[in-house]
Amino acid sequence: MVSAQGIRELKDIVGKNRCLTAPEDLMVYSHDVFAERRPDVVILPMTTEEVSRVLQVASREKIPVTPRGSATGLSGMCTPEWGGIVMAMSKMNKILEISPEDRLAIVEPGVITQDLQEAVERAGVFYPPDPASQSICQIGGNVATNAGGPRCVKYGVTRDYILGLEAVLASGEVIKTGGRPIKNVTGYDITRLICGSEGTLAVITKIIIKLIPKPEARRTLLVAFRSIDDASVTVSKIMAAGILPRALELMDHQYIRITEKNFKLGLPVEAAAMLIIEVDGFAETVDRQARIAKEFCERQGAFDIKLAESEAEADRLWVARKTGSVALFRLSKMMLTEDATVPISKIPSMVRKINEIREKYRIPIYLLAHAGDGNMHPLITYDPQNKEESERVDNAVKEIFETSIALGGTLSGEHGIGLAKKNFLHLEVTPAELQVWKNIKKSFDPEGILNPGKFV
Amino acid sequence: MVSAQGIRELKDIVGKNRCLTAPEDLMVYSHDVFAERRPDVVILPMTTEEVSRVLQVASREKIPVTPRGSATGLSGMCTPEWGGIVMAMSKMNKILEISPEDRLAIVEPGVITQDLQEAVERAGVFYPPDPASQSICQIGGNVATNAGGPRCVKYGVTRDYILGLEAVLASGEVIKTGGRPIKNVTGYDITRLICGSEGTLAVITKIIIKLIPKPEARRTLLVAFRSIDDASVTVSKIMAAGILPRALELMDHQYIRITEKNFKLGLPVEAAAMLIIEVDGFAETVDRQARIAKEFCERQGAFDIKLAESEAEADRLWVARKTGSVALFRLSKMMLTEDATVPISKIPSMVRKINEIREKYRIPIYLLAHAGDGNMHPLITYDPQNKEESERVDNAVKEIFETSIALGGTLSGEHGIGLAKKNFLHLEVTPAELQVWKNIKKSFDPEGILNPGKFV
Repeated sequence: MVSAQGIRELKDIVGKNRCLTAPEDLMVYSHDVFAERRPDVVILPMTTEEVSRVLQVASREKIPVTPRGSATGLSGMCTPEWGGIVMAMSKMNKILEISPEDRLAIVEPGVITQDLQEAVERAGVFYPPDPASQSICQIGGNVATNAGGPRCVKYGVTRDYILGLEAVLASGEVIKTGGRPIKNVTGYDITRLICGSEGTLAVITKIIIKLIPKPEARRTLLVAFRSIDDASVTVSKIMAAGILPRALELMDHQYIRITEKNFKLGLPVEAAAMLIIEVDGFAETVDRQARIAKEFCERQGAFDIKLAESEAEADRLWVARKTGSVALFRLSKMMLTEDATVPISKIPSMVRKINEIREKYRIPIYLLAHAGDGNMHPLITYDPQNKEESERVDNAVKEIFETSIALGGTLSGEHGIGLAKKNFLHLEVTPAELQVWKNIKKSFDPEGILNPGKFV
Repeated sequence: MVSAQGIRELKDIVGKNRCLTAPEDLMVYSHDVFAERRPDVVILPMTTEEVSRVLQVASREKIPVTPRGSATGLSGMCTPEWGGIVMAMSKMNKILEISPEDRLAIVEPGVITQDLQEAVERAGVFYPPDPASQSICQIGGNVATNAGGPRCVKYGVTRDYILGLEAVLASGEVIKTGGRPIKNVTGYDITRLICGSEGTLAVITKIIIKLIPKPEARRTLLVAFRSIDDASVTVSKIMAAGILPRALELMDHQYIRITEKNFKLGLPVEAAAMLIIEVDGFAETVDRQARIAKEFCERQGAFDIKLAESEAEADRLWVARKTGSVALFRLSKMMLTEDATVPISKIPSMVRKINEIREKYRIPIYLLAHAGDGNMHPLITYDPQNKEESERVDNAVKEIFETSIALGGTLSGEHGIGLAKKNFLHLEVTPAELQVWKNIKKSFDPEGILNPGKFV
């Protein structure tokens, strides 16, 4: 609970219009895709100084503060587990600078990821990370969760594109980390410690983003296989053969069927699996890379290979990949999107095991994967009101995580831990390792006011 | 000082042959390129368990422990400032696994960087970071210092190639961070916190290294300019034009002259500056990239452009870049290699300022730079016995750092802070930021036994 005096102080800092307490406002800021928790008050800061002053009050009064972007997260990372303040960064949404010469952009955290991408591409440079929610998610949330996406197989994740940050500590103190230079080894890497810390260490108020030259061409293939084993073996062979596609996505039979049923795209519903393979780079090389990838697929038994002849056709090939999960989300009462991630060579084993789990627990699992980096996305639909079914789902999810860890994988490739996976952490992390995290958390936030109740 | 009882315990752990106390042995392990400090005892562990047991003794007895690789560092990072134990990792030197399929290698810290590079290239994969000392330095030291090198302009630094670590905390507890998956967002990024921490947080005992496909071709240009301004403007224009060379190195007039004088390579000594521009990738594209780079140089007033027609010729073009600093090092009583780093667009300003500093303090400065990422290497030779000259050098160094920071740069692009730059940290880092580092240090190493007396 925030006291009436506390609310008054917060209103003094940001003004009435950006300090929300009406129940309908609180509801809007109470959930992400996974969880729902009601805050006591929502603050919409517009400056770093406001963030700092709010945190000073929160620190003094020991009020929990949960920073959030667009709340497109899938693990309950930005829901205010212990109530208190939700600090929504959407009004700090300016692109402050784009410098192709220094290969960087400087932005506030509330900038929509796709707006950033379009702005830098107009300037001839490129920001690769492309989380599925890029049209609505905020770059600050991407940094806080170290977001991924299909293109990350070639280009790396959000973490690899952050040169520096301005952030506010729990105490209200403002720090900067890193800076404009591309290379920087001065002191501890606080930039990457805050990146992926899910709002538990500091509130990000400014981001220096590294940019790269924009690839001039891409070629996209959509390939159908009669066996999912053939498809997943193809993935690991392509990667080992020196082709690094900019995307290498896998869809299984269940996913293809539900997508075709809902969208009538003309997909080969007899396929056991499909791959999207996208290569990019200089114009001269994309054709050769596409040809090599095609030959691999043929040798591995692919029976239907579509090679896009234009940008528009390439976009059409992506429709199947992008719409299926939306359809599933709409059709189901609840959809879980897991993201257990394994070494690339273990993809065939992981896929086989997911099929076993589907049978064993009699639940619908639709398998999507950023296969190129072993990042599986089993989508599970169910009715959370049905207790017996929910239990089967819980057990299936647990077994998916156990399998991933047993194969040398991790609980989360890109969605984060948040609330969803904190109870599974012991599978991957030893008590000594968790203690290291807790010590760091304590060193940043001794009162534990930043996003409490989460993974650390 | 380590007590006789302490020495006996250490000998019990690693055996007499790997617990060195003879003065001549201690001398061997007492310096890097920058500083010299005598340890009380040198331990050469062969297993993680030995590292752990040594740290348990050190923790209990509060003995400083300074881990080191080949001590090729330039900032006094691995010299035992407070004596105690030097833990030399050279005997933990096994390549445990190379998996092209999973795009990774697993190695012990004592593996020589070039041995690793050659081994993975034989397997068809590629480890890009290439510090100048790659033929003798150890990969563990590269991780501890987040080492760079010429190829890092395109491929990123050591940090970008570490998937996970095994490390031993000051307490002797063994932790692992990250893992085999390419993508991993489970918990805080301890991997990158330890990377670049200069031995102050943990002793690295195993490294999971990310590999990428090996580029199939490269083209190398050596380009001479009549004005250093033209050369440095060329650098920033090439970068802004969408060409990302795998190396973009600058040498100034002083450096060219001293190199030619000592090695008679046929360099154009009338040049005010030279650039090495190296592009790589698929065979079809390197020619076009090289042509574009060449056109840029011509338009910017280059008067002598050599384009290597073979691998052997490419290697020859690199000779000038690589031998000059060796010559200087041998010819001088003392050579400082600074690495202040600026945003790419500020290279022309930084170069002009270094020329002013050279005049102002009347000291020889030879300028090398990984210009593609703004990483300057002013080499300063002097006689440390000459007090008056040393003072001028100190003042010049200070002004170089101040200039770098004023231009939005950093104290260190790749050489680290260690002892050399700790007195300059206040130029770049606020007390609040330094406190964050100190808090982290304390959370890892409450007794302060790991590499004490350094930057944190």
